[in-house]
Amino acid sequence: MANFKLVLAYDGTAYKGFQKQPGLPTVQGALEEVLRRVAVRESPLYAAGRTDAGVHARGQVVNFHGRIKTSPERLPRAMNALLPPDIVVLECREVEEGFHARRSAWAREYAYYFLTGGPPSPFTRLYALHVPGTLDEGAMREALQAVIGVHDFASFCRREEGRSTVREVMEAALRREGELLSVRVKANAFAWMMMRMLCGSLLQVGKGRWTPERFLAAVEARDASRSGPALPPHGLFLERIYY
Amino acid sequence: MANFKLVLAYDGTAYKGFQKQPGLPTVQGALEEVLRRVAVRESPLYAAGRTDAGVHARGQVVNFHGRIKTSPERLPRAMNALLPPDIVVLECREVEEGFHARRSAWAREYAYYFLTGGPPSPFTRLYALHVPGTLDEGAMREALQAVIGVHDFASFCRREEGRSTVREVMEAALRREGELLSVRVKANAFAWMMMRMLCGSLLQVGKGRWTPERFLAAVEARDASRSGPALPPHGLFLERIYY
Repeated sequence: MANFKLVLAYDGTAYKGFQKQPGLPTVQGALEEVLRRVAVRESPLYAAGRTDAGVHARGQVVNFHGRIKTSPERLPRAMNALLPPDIVVLECREVEEGFHARRSAWAREYAYYFLTGGPPSPFTRLYALHVPGTLDEGAMREALQAVIGVHDFASFCRREEGRSTVREVMEAALRREGELLSVRVKANAFAWMMMRMLCGSLLQVGKGRWTPERFLAAVEARDASRSGPALPPHGLFLERIYY
Repeated sequence: MANFKLVLAYDGTAYKGFQKQPGLPTVQGALEEVLRRVAVRESPLYAAGRTDAGVHARGQVVNFHGRIKTSPERLPRAMNALLPPDIVVLECREVEEGFHARRSAWAREYAYYFLTGGPPSPFTRLYALHVPGTLDEGAMREALQAVIGVHDFASFCRREEGRSTVREVMEAALRREGELLSVRVKANAFAWMMMRMLCGSLLQVGKGRWTPERFLAAVEARDASRSGPALPPHGLFLERIYY
């Protein structure tokens, strides 16, 4: 028996999130169905991040213990031939017995994408939030500094009973990528809805409705009623998991 | 009564082409339905290019004579609020009486996109043809020179009774755009299926199955049986119309 790590990309549009739910289309459900044909799994499928309904991934990581019916090098192609085209296995490697997709990860990177300053686009409509006006990128950059470091992100998450909302943000940056503007955040872990609430608050700053100081005060308040509206899932990507 | 020019972008995935067909979803059908609510049209809707089923557009141009119920500046936003999100009006301008979207155009630019050298991508699966291997870009560039100038493109089109297949190609280039490779062709006009057959033949060169000389011979043969297989529509974009 061996331990296999898979790196996945998926378009979350058609799925009710990563995690399996009976009777609903989920990424995990689609993956496990294909794994039944190419592998003998002797453990659950562990995932680094549980993306919510409609959220995309460019670098989700999962692992499982068991056997595969081909080599790790050939598994991606075999699986991609069986998977729906909105889920792609990018890579498969055999890893040491102790590797765990979620517990072994020391950081995750998410990015939220905006299409700004012009008409909407039919080609990014499923992958970026359209904001008709221009955004004050300088003010957004300034505000974003407030999230770097160790903070209690209670303001920017839906509380889950008995779970800490303290996270360490290692990097937070605003990046121009062609016609898109992205907010990229790398943290040890993310609280539920954290990116969508954080970026919703940042968008208030970009639109000039909030000062960077108000954003900072919202972070420090540790009170979700101080957050801007959570943004829709389709602009959010799980970009990368760090091990 | 005035003459209005609209510039459009659309994702062709869900449509049976631009041109209206009874009972089928078409871009023209969707547009005309919305125009009925924001304009009084007193001419047909003229389009610069009739894109086939599944082909996309970043700069399709249409015009019509009539009246609009708002200003040209406001029409795009009004129409976009009513259109499905896979069709976007980018621009509206009042133009001189004699302007005709198709007949006034002196050139069109199409681009065909390939995703090469790696696994498929869930995010470009509807907008680029996935080619797992790497392509010989040098050989493709060399071959592409053969289409520049005035040629009878009978080898690279489905013949339409009584219509000439002579076209003038002004520019033809292979361009790297991040992870995508595009074949961009600017011509006075395009024969039916010309881009998809031309790019299908060029792909044979890229894969090393044809020499650039064989591609040149195929152009000169004026015989569609000498073309490589026509490529699927989803990699093709109508990029721009020149007036």
